Amino acid sequence: MHRIPFATMQAVIAEAFVNAGMNQVDASTCARIHAESSRDGVYSHGLNRVARFVDYVKRGWVDIGAKPVLVKKLGVIEIHDGKRAPGITNAFYATDRAIELAAANGVGIVALRNTTHWMRGGTYGWYAADRGYVAISWTNTESCMPAWGGKDTRLGNNPFVMDVPRQRGHIVLDMAMSQYSYGKLGVTRLKGATLPFPGGFDAEGNLTSDPGPIEKSMRILPAGYWKGSGLAILLDTLAAVFSEGLATNEIDKLKLGSCTGCSQIFIIIDPRQLGGEAFSDRVADGVADYVNASTPAENSKEVLYPGQSTLRTRIEHTANGIVADEGVWADVLALAGRSA
Amino acid sequence: MHRIPFATMQAVIAEAFVNAGMNQVDASTCARIHAESSRDGVYSHGLNRVARFVDYVKRGWVDIGAKPVLVKKLGVIEIHDGKRAPGITNAFYATDRAIELAAANGVGIVALRNTTHWMRGGTYGWYAADRGYVAISWTNTESCMPAWGGKDTRLGNNPFVMDVPRQRGHIVLDMAMSQYSYGKLGVTRLKGATLPFPGGFDAEGNLTSDPGPIEKSMRILPAGYWKGSGLAILLDTLAAVFSEGLATNEIDKLKLGSCTGCSQIFIIIDPRQLGGEAFSDRVADGVADYVNASTPAENSKEVLYPGQSTLRTRIEHTANGIVADEGVWADVLALAGRSA
Repeated sequence: MHRIPFATMQAVIAEAFVNAGMNQVDASTCARIHAESSRDGVYSHGLNRVARFVDYVKRGWVDIGAKPVLVKKLGVIEIHDGKRAPGITNAFYATDRAIELAAANGVGIVALRNTTHWMRGGTYGWYAADRGYVAISWTNTESCMPAWGGKDTRLGNNPFVMDVPRQRGHIVLDMAMSQYSYGKLGVTRLKGATLPFPGGFDAEGNLTSDPGPIEKSMRILPAGYWKGSGLAILLDTLAAVFSEGLATNEIDKLKLGSCTGCSQIFIIIDPRQLGGEAFSDRVADGVADYVNASTPAENSKEVLYPGQSTLRTRIEHTANGIVADEGVWADVLALAGRSA
Repeated sequence: MHRIPFATMQAVIAEAFVNAGMNQVDASTCARIHAESSRDGVYSHGLNRVARFVDYVKRGWVDIGAKPVLVKKLGVIEIHDGKRAPGITNAFYATDRAIELAAANGVGIVALRNTTHWMRGGTYGWYAADRGYVAISWTNTESCMPAWGGKDTRLGNNPFVMDVPRQRGHIVLDMAMSQYSYGKLGVTRLKGATLPFPGGFDAEGNLTSDPGPIEKSMRILPAGYWKGSGLAILLDTLAAVFSEGLATNEIDKLKLGSCTGCSQIFIIIDPRQLGGEAFSDRVADGVADYVNASTPAENSKEVLYPGQSTLRTRIEHTANGIVADEGVWADVLALAGRSA
């Protein structure tokens, strides 16, 4: 494993994106988000995802020349067409617009259709939190998981993001609907290990912690069995209804790259216009402290609130460099036109 | 098991509530909701919960003479103090007010603090759906579940409700944060059965499907392990921040009846002011049909969307009477001053 300074990682990824045809500003923004995802320990959507994004651009699944367009305005709600521009710049555009609406009205909602992969969903929760806002955001995706009781993939993993800002560390949830990602299955299989808990069904319908058979069957497990399945269905339906966009079953018909054509919702609330920042902080402190003061279970040393572990990884990586796979780093250097 | 006609069940429960001191109108409303919950197969919050509600009234944990009061208004957002009035009438008041705001603005949000147990959360999703509205609603509760990695109860099960209305049957999710309710554990134990999947930890920290040891340890499992734990934390924090009300750790300090003093959020959206009812219906049909067309798994005969099974139970119970436990029915008849 290499350790790469944040600035170096961002600069190299930005060069790779400029080489793919992006303008400097968008390349720098997208590179920063990929680097931040790796910095926060979310490797799957960080450096590791750069080559795939470049591939999507080359295939025409992401339109780097496009910009989102306002389609409809209804009070504090706006619907925008993402025009299949880069998912990261689109999601920032939507979050910023929802923040503007919330700054003026207490709440703002942007529904974004026909966008592309936003990469790490938590990005937009942390971004809102850093500016003092609550975010409730989600995306639908192409199908990758059976509905509960089914065999064939029908549901997206539809990442769902929520944050409450806090001086002592934001509380941020970034939760996909499957118990484990396919990325986690692959990494676990390559280590020759098993999952800590069952992650899906093998081809015969047996629940298993062995990742290989689940990758083959595509019968990955919804988090909480029927519960994650149900939540995925509602998030998908509402994202498409709200944005006048595509639901998972329609995204599947496109047969394009992951999340191309997807629908996203960005709900932003300003707690400073409600009980105020001091009140909001006191509530969030109370929740975080109560969780942290739990008696640890037998296999646990401490009990954390959502976002706490991410913040620790961020601090460690910022001080010591971001952990990166040598092969992946070499590939991105090559895309940037640099020698390894 | 008895079969009780809906009208009989509602009338008898209403008499029990009038005997507890409620006025006729509120008693009739609350009785209808308890009867509807049993009619829909959600027995835990239907007839079975009547005696406990009456007990809460007698102990002063629910104030049947109180009415909610508007505390703050900010555009499409309103904060109300529930004054510990009955949770059902309070939640209808909040949902109706959010519907009025949504009818005028596309979206309406009511945050309700200091309320009491709303009984079945799905009630307010079905109610909004029947009127053509999308609802995203949740409540916090006193703690009943450890945070992930912890031993002691720190999290509420914080039911989360979402609906998308649909002519051919609304899509309605009513999801608590624990994998199973304590009610389900008790019923399973009394049958001498085990849970279909692990439902928590025994006192030694072993994951188990045996309900008895979980009831004793109070180490019930969050749905999706760390995922349900994280979602419970965010829903709790945001409910308290938004309503300027109490979070789970503060509700715990009250040491009153379940949910007394809790905080609730009601977000209502009008899809008719977005893409229109025909569009919304087409999207929802597409999602439901895609799920229903799944190939059933080995242990499954069909694959359902959230709310589909509820609707079937409703139709069957409406035709043939509501299934009721004889002992529970006798107790409610006694509370109504009738002989069994």
